[in-house]
Amino acid sequence: MSGPATIGRCTWALLLAIAIGAATHGTHAQSITDVQNVAKARGLTNADLLAAAKTFMPSGQKDEYIMFSSGGHSGQVFVIGMPSMRLLRSIAVFTPEPWQGWGYGVGEEVLAAGDVAGKPNRWGDTHHPALSETKGDYDGQWLFINDKINARVAVIDLRDFETKQIVKNPLTISDHGGTFVTPDTEYVIEGGQYATPWGADYAPISEYKEKYRGSVTMWKFNRKKGRIDIENSFALQLPPYWQDLSDAGKLASDGYIFLNSLNSEMATGGIQDKKPPFEAGVSRNATDYLHIIDWKKAEKVFKAGKVEKIKGFPVITLDTSIAEGLLYLTPEPRSPHGVDVAPRGDFIVVSGKLDPHVTIYSMQKIKSAIASKKFSGKDDFGVPILDFDAVLEAQVELGLGPLHTQFGPDGYAYTSLFLDSAVARWTLGGTYGSGTPEPDWTLVTKTPVHYNVGHIGCAEGDTVSPDGKYLVAFNKWSVDRFFPPGPLLPQNFQLIDITASGATMPVIYDMPIGVGEPHYAQIIKADKLNPWTVYPGIGWDPHTQSLDPWAPKAKMERIERKGDTVEVYMTAIRSHFNPEHITVKEGDKIVWRITNIERAIDAVHGFAVPQYNINLSLEPGETAKIEFVADRPGTFPFYCSEFCSALHLEMMGYLMVEPR
Amino acid sequence: MSGPATIGRCTWALLLAIAIGAATHGTHAQSITDVQNVAKARGLTNADLLAAAKTFMPSGQKDEYIMFSSGGHSGQVFVIGMPSMRLLRSIAVFTPEPWQGWGYGVGEEVLAAGDVAGKPNRWGDTHHPALSETKGDYDGQWLFINDKINARVAVIDLRDFETKQIVKNPLTISDHGGTFVTPDTEYVIEGGQYATPWGADYAPISEYKEKYRGSVTMWKFNRKKGRIDIENSFALQLPPYWQDLSDAGKLASDGYIFLNSLNSEMATGGIQDKKPPFEAGVSRNATDYLHIIDWKKAEKVFKAGKVEKIKGFPVITLDTSIAEGLLYLTPEPRSPHGVDVAPRGDFIVVSGKLDPHVTIYSMQKIKSAIASKKFSGKDDFGVPILDFDAVLEAQVELGLGPLHTQFGPDGYAYTSLFLDSAVARWTLGGTYGSGTPEPDWTLVTKTPVHYNVGHIGCAEGDTVSPDGKYLVAFNKWSVDRFFPPGPLLPQNFQLIDITASGATMPVIYDMPIGVGEPHYAQIIKADKLNPWTVYPGIGWDPHTQSLDPWAPKAKMERIERKGDTVEVYMTAIRSHFNPEHITVKEGDKIVWRITNIERAIDAVHGFAVPQYNINLSLEPGETAKIEFVADRPGTFPFYCSEFCSALHLEMMGYLMVEPR
Repeated sequence: MSGPATIGRCTWALLLAIAIGAATHGTHAQSITDVQNVAKARGLTNADLLAAAKTFMPSGQKDEYIMFSSGGHSGQVFVIGMPSMRLLRSIAVFTPEPWQGWGYGVGEEVLAAGDVAGKPNRWGDTHHPALSETKGDYDGQWLFINDKINARVAVIDLRDFETKQIVKNPLTISDHGGTFVTPDTEYVIEGGQYATPWGADYAPISEYKEKYRGSVTMWKFNRKKGRIDIENSFALQLPPYWQDLSDAGKLASDGYIFLNSLNSEMATGGIQDKKPPFEAGVSRNATDYLHIIDWKKAEKVFKAGKVEKIKGFPVITLDTSIAEGLLYLTPEPRSPHGVDVAPRGDFIVVSGKLDPHVTIYSMQKIKSAIASKKFSGKDDFGVPILDFDAVLEAQVELGLGPLHTQFGPDGYAYTSLFLDSAVARWTLGGTYGSGTPEPDWTLVTKTPVHYNVGHIGCAEGDTVSPDGKYLVAFNKWSVDRFFPPGPLLPQNFQLIDITASGATMPVIYDMPIGVGEPHYAQIIKADKLNPWTVYPGIGWDPHTQSLDPWAPKAKMERIERKGDTVEVYMTAIRSHFNPEHITVKEGDKIVWRITNIERAIDAVHGFAVPQYNINLSLEPGETAKIEFVADRPGTFPFYCSEFCSALHLEMMGYLMVEPR
Repeated sequence: MSGPATIGRCTWALLLAIAIGAATHGTHAQSITDVQNVAKARGLTNADLLAAAKTFMPSGQKDEYIMFSSGGHSGQVFVIGMPSMRLLRSIAVFTPEPWQGWGYGVGEEVLAAGDVAGKPNRWGDTHHPALSETKGDYDGQWLFINDKINARVAVIDLRDFETKQIVKNPLTISDHGGTFVTPDTEYVIEGGQYATPWGADYAPISEYKEKYRGSVTMWKFNRKKGRIDIENSFALQLPPYWQDLSDAGKLASDGYIFLNSLNSEMATGGIQDKKPPFEAGVSRNATDYLHIIDWKKAEKVFKAGKVEKIKGFPVITLDTSIAEGLLYLTPEPRSPHGVDVAPRGDFIVVSGKLDPHVTIYSMQKIKSAIASKKFSGKDDFGVPILDFDAVLEAQVELGLGPLHTQFGPDGYAYTSLFLDSAVARWTLGGTYGSGTPEPDWTLVTKTPVHYNVGHIGCAEGDTVSPDGKYLVAFNKWSVDRFFPPGPLLPQNFQLIDITASGATMPVIYDMPIGVGEPHYAQIIKADKLNPWTVYPGIGWDPHTQSLDPWAPKAKMERIERKGDTVEVYMTAIRSHFNPEHITVKEGDKIVWRITNIERAIDAVHGFAVPQYNINLSLEPGETAKIEFVADRPGTFPFYCSEFCSALHLEMMGYLMVEPR
């Protein structure tokens, strides 16, 4: 080796010892005139500056609210800070994601539980996240989310923001009306979507009415275990309407759930045979059906064993539901999307996208109509239909394409208008009436949004105690709002300030969403969440949320051969793995346990192995076990894939697989 | 069917006909006092307001710069607008991503080209994005990115921001010093990282010096085809140092490339056997080696056939490189990361993380030293080492952990300081000296960043004409900057305003990155990009970037059976697929072509099939072909997974697979 040693005289130890000097970062005192000058140069109005002042977050200042947004067909969940509208994290759920190691070394068992008939389905179409609730209010402990494409439900632990369970619905193929929780998170509700023969059985479309069915599944949640308790869950068979959104009753409507539906026409499409396409057939009638289900009574029926096992799962059949008085229908404006229960549980608001009104049902009237059997008839399956006029509280004309409703703390309701591309503010009546200066059941104002708004979310806007302040319009199209990154444009989350009453409801931020197509989001006060920043102990298994007795610890690192199995017990700490050399023979099975023995916040290590499709993200304290057969001979440099220190590049080793 | 028709009297046709009424969105004129009141209530200083005014983007206003950031071990590329620091899009590259359909119906051939030995490696560790250049300036046409874990290079077309090609390096297993392009994008450079036996051959670590080798690969880029031309590409064998970052010369240094290295010690680790771990062994010597390669001469050597085919790939061996005078070394401060060529090509700046200086080499002196053979010796492999003092221009002491350097338009250079968690501004000398008020080769100021800054990026800061204005610190740790979404914290991209000279260099925005761990980014003026917002014609194949003669068109939809193969020709338009019923027999092969026949911007349709792991994103005009065997009998509702219209939920159909 040659090369002068005349430069770089600092030693590593010396470098560590040198105290970091005072920063010479210079700023002079800023005046408001400086601000106005910049605004002028950039073409910002005072309204723009006001919006900036409302949303800008100086370095280190924390967001007041956290939004949990579905990721649509990305299959993930997004965590967004508000009001800054910054994406804090993607949580891998149904789709493998290597930054988090999900499906690339850990999470395989969780993902596999969501496979269908043993064949991997490794993406999801996440729609409706639901935060766990206590007495109808978010408690910040769990998050649930559905997958529309394969009718699955996932459970996320809000201590570490990781997916702990995926459950595949054994009956329906697709879902939509989920997830929603009952007020104490007794159940996680999963309503179906497209009617099909259950369990993916085959039946031609000509047998639609006889063999295709709808469903709603009541997944029992075990809060202590942090898992859906499949053994104590059940489903209700429903007519082959396409059940859509659902919501759980609370307070005045506690014990009930509500599902709306499309295609009460039972249209079967067939454009290729010159029949009306689904879009026409499904929208033919002026009304669809709101489903009203007494889940507390249904739970008793289930517990009494009045179920049929279908595809191995307990099902309350339509006949039983009718006989036991569990299920009622009532007409609702056609092509409905949102069914939303008001904060006190007394009103149920339905938006039919092809009707300019929102339709408000009274829970008290529904209960009376059920008690007095005020039916306008029965549907083709014998389900009693509550007389519309007997259960109607009000209708409010808002505009074109009402889609989804959220609530403020003060008697205002907010409804997205898809065709208008606007968000409407309107007043509730009843006991909410005194909260607003405007008359009951009145449109107050509309704020244009850009464009094609789907759901909306208010801060805690679907709980018993909405916070108001912020509303987010989840716009499906952005068109001209952002620089176009090719033909696939981002969606646009627009933040609206709803603090003022009356007509003042400005858009204050446009957030592009270019990592998926979110469908719905829930927004929780940040201080209700208590996430871990490091795992509670060294050797923590995030799947069991407990210390793993097999976890490698410092000074216990080793390699043990047991026949054709090589067990590696490895630790990771800045900036080395121990051991660094792993030598095995081709065909050996490797059981590789690694613990990140760091205790500092943010001291994450990755673990990446070439050609074996492996990457782990090991948060401080976390342990993981990976197993694979060393079926490829060669010399493979593994390394830490998370930039952890100045010597991060040196944190590596060699896996040597000797050919047989 | 029963149910009253007394509500929702609007017909669909009527709804479409109604003009959207004027919005009643109310705002009153805002004053600067309103702004100050909000700022006061939120605890914002005037400096904060100034930062807000510099970064806030009113709805519809477009960002001035676009940043292309690697996604680290997410395997993707992120597109970020500046100065708003909003994530506009993730581009799927090495990792399947269902929102974009990547790997879930399209992209399979591209991804498969990056497989190793026929075994899928379906994630990447993206490090250094490189925009295509013309005369050393970004031209906005192509983007390249490397994958460190499996030594691959991807090509992204900036017309549609989609990945078109993945190339697997046949020699090295891991790469780092790439991608970088020569000034006219003649070549895309991929420097290796960890020395290994090439082609993933097996050799024990004890044979390190003999059998492990480094490399740099010169991938020829065919701009007309938009593909790397593998046939006209070649590699240079290098000593088994861990080649690290690289950069291409330009102007004064045109024709050269520069790679730095770690582990000129050829340490082999072995902590498990009480040997010094890699982190110690690799950092033992005071210097490593900067590699200086005359690529124009190397190209001639390659074209003259003076190569060996190794693993089927043409390689200029070390002996040939030495004999032909292609390769020189010179000492550089140890543990270097950045090697960065100044805008005029005259200076090469190296940052050694364990030395407090940046070291500046003169290209003119390097050329003179080569010409006059001013060698201080040879390395163990016979490579001549240029005398350090003969090629040194200057050293500037900046602080702890210098990592990566970028340039402004005015003679300032900027270097990240990993251990200081700061960004240093310093002055260049030579012909740049007159641009700055401060003396040449002087530290001007440091701005603290939060925390552990890796690379930095300036607007066009590595081209022949840097723009200045903005610098982004790609901080690896965020620690306390954001609400913690569990133990896996986001990274922190901090935007720094570098408009003013001297000591004024404030952080004006903190952007959390919670979707991957970006390593480096390049920042281009937005108006240099010309993305398509819809594909040029109906039936466009994004892979070939041409019209597909097989693409289904309106009125040509059909299903054709050919033996056991069923060919579906389907169109998608708001809000139906045609055909809607697809009936096949179990075991049939389905060749399914779908065209999105929309021409409106943002009118994207998805196409999702349950239980077959399929999701497509079809942008306006796009056609796609998917092929699969209908090996699962059943009735499967397929649907549009992108919320496209008020009747989006109705955009579906049934795939019926009849059991045999």
